Parts: sequence; C-alpha cells; structure tokens
Amino acid sequence: MVHYKLTYFDARGLAETARQLFVLADVEFEDNRLTIEEFQKLKPTLPSGQVPILHVDGFEISQSAAIWRYLARKFGYSGKTPEEEATADSIIDHFKDFLVSFKHYGAGLFFGKSQEELNRVRKEIVEPACKFYFSVLKKYLEKNTSGYLVGSDLTYADIAVAENLTSLKNTNFFNPDEEKTLAAFHQKVNETPKLKEYLEKRKYSIL
Amino acid sequence: MVHYKLTYFDARGLAETARQLFVLADVEFEDNRLTIEEFQKLKPTLPSGQVPILHVDGFEISQSAAIWRYLARKFGYSGKTPEEEATADSIIDHFKDFLVSFKHYGAGLFFGKSQEELNRVRKEIVEPACKFYFSVLKKYLEKNTSGYLVGSDLTYADIAVAENLTSLKNTNFFNPDEEKTLAAFHQKVNETPKLKEYLEKRKYSIL
Repeated sequence: MVHYKLTYFDARGLAETARQLFVLADVEFEDNRLTIEEFQKLKPTLPSGQVPILHVDGFEISQSAAIWRYLARKFGYSGKTPEEEATADSIIDHFKDFLVSFKHYGAGLFFGKSQEELNRVRKEIVEPACKFYFSVLKKYLEKNTSGYLVGSDLTYADIAVAENLTSLKNTNFFNPDEEKTLAAFHQKVNETPKLKEYLEKRKYSIL
Repeated sequence: MVHYKLTYFDARGLAETARQLFVLADVEFEDNRLTIEEFQKLKPTLPSGQVPILHVDGFEISQSAAIWRYLARKFGYSGKTPEEEATADSIIDHFKDFLVSFKHYGAGLFFGKSQEELNRVRKEIVEPACKFYFSVLKKYLEKNTSGYLVGSDLTYADIAVAENLTSLKNTNFFNPDEEKTLAAFHQKVNETPKLKEYLEKRKYSIL
C-alpha cells in the first residue's frame, strides 16, 4: 500500500484541501502536524523552506496546489476532460491570486498584530481583493448549471474554494446572507456525504 | 482542425510559454496581440479582466499557468508520470510565487516609474526574491542529472523558467557569469532545435 505523509502546521490552511481529498477517496494518510519548533528544524531540508509537503512512498511534492492536483488526479477529482481540468486549474490560480492578498491578514493574526493594523489590512487589502475574487467565482458559478464550479461533479477547485470560504466566514470577510450564490455553493460542497461527516468532527482552527 | 487563439499584449510576458509550446508541437495558432485600447475594450468580457486568454474552438481558458499546463498535456510537455507532472507543477508554482515580487518591477517599467523608484523596487523587493527563487531552482537542477528541471526531457516548467530567465537577464537580475548552473540550464533550453530557430527570429521585447 502506498504511504502518504502530509506535513503541515496544526491548522487547516494550505493542507486542508489535501486532507479532504484523502477523506473523499477513503485513503489513509499520515497527518503530520508540526509545532513551530519542529517546523524550524525541518525548514532547511525543504525545497523552498515551506510547507505543506507531501511524501508519497518517499517521493516529495512541494507547493499546495501541485499537491492538491496530484491527489485530485489520482482520486478522480480533477475534472473529467482536459477542458474541465483546465477550468479547475484556472479557478485554483484565481484563488491563489486572492491568497496573495488574504495572507497579509492571516500572517497578521498569526504574528499577533494590533487590532488597528488588522483593521487597516482588512480595509485596504483584503476587502477589495474579496470583492474582485467573489465576482470571478460568481461568473463561473453562474455560467455552470450544476451548482459546482466546473462540470457536473465535485472537483478539487470546489473543495479548495469552499474550504477557504469557511476561513473567510470565520474572519468576517464572507457573509452568507449577503452573498447568496456563494453561500449556496459553500453549503452544497459542505454537504457532500463523506465531507459532511468529516467537517462535523474535525478540529476547529480559524484558518 | 482545432482553432487555437491566444490573446495577450504585444509582448512575451505571460503568453510566451504558450507560444513556444505551439512552436515545439508544430501546431498553428492565432497570435492575437492587443494594443492597450483593444485590451480595455475586451476587459469587461474576460472572466477576471485579465490576459492571457486561450480560446480552443471557442472554449475559453484563463490564467497563464492553466493555459500552459493544458497545452503541455496536449502536446506531451507536462512530464511522463504523475510524479513528474507534480514536480513540473510545483516548479511552476515556485515560479509564480516569484512573479508576485517581480511584477512590481515589470509594472514599474510599464507605467514609466522614475529610475529612483525602479531602483528601490530592485533592491528592496526583486533582488531578495531572486536570491531565494534561484536557490530553489538550483536545488531542483542539482538533484536532477539531465540538465532539465524534471526527469530526462523538456517540460513546460523548463520553458516557463528559461523564458523568464531571459527577462531577468534583460533587466540585469540574472547574470550568467555569476549563476553558472542557471546559465547552463538557460542555454540548454534555448538550444532546443525548434526553439532555437524561433528565438532567433522572434520580435524583441524586454519582458
């Protein structure tokens, strides 16, 4: 049996989409959650000093989206045609563009910045980025009729986007009462049978 | 015959890797290069108001890396195994992380910022980002024995990285005399027979 080892911090963040792909596929994996001290020790051995890292029988993959795509293809969540795969990949890259802005807020929380500084980042950086990002997501959802972002079934793009919407809800950037299309999408993904059960039990983390 | 239409500005930038994949595969495509005025007209119709955009018989793909990956898979430049594909994807995402910094310089050039401001961006943002990015690339090149970044043959990761090294050379961020490993890699990719011929003839643009 293939041994999968996913290494990240003890948070959802950039590892959670991979964890959910394992859950959906009923595939066991080692969920290696590092303390800050353990991460500092490991850092010099990593390709870019960053986590998440996935080891597959010793073979190492860095970069979150590359890890998700690898697992999505293995487990059947990457899209059914080359065109669906390309659309899922496009959405993932729109999401990653948004993260460039959102991570200023995440890093601010993590490093315990003042409420004043967090408010500044919220207003000047993250709220405008959310507005733009949400408009892009809604274009995809309104063009598709299934309620998913791509084609007729769940893909890794849905998982990554819905997972991040939970973080945006936790930090008051996403208000389901104001964003009906996104709220319906978020609920649909989170009600996927195996995911629903997992989401009810998983450890809470704000991000 | 499939009709491919690649829409971008009249520059190399984020479209050039796609153009080179067409050249390598001997596949005809419509190289639709927009003026700023044409782009402004098109912008509201695009999924995120951005180019490049690839149309494949009317089907639309946004986001540069998603376009490159789609073409690379079609034409056989995405890697030979799921693990090679994941490694190429990882490298592309390391490259895109670097672009978040480098684009400050590119935008500065494009919008005609003062030499003083360009120098500040160079020292404070792009030079530190280059140092880190080059160290990541060298780890991949030193681990692989073929001279390419992934496996034994050319992939889209090699094309995208080599293409950007040309831009970094043009803007004096990459000095081949100081970076021997990267210089050998850059030369190897640029000497790929069909590419070599194309590179000698293509229109010059700094980026």
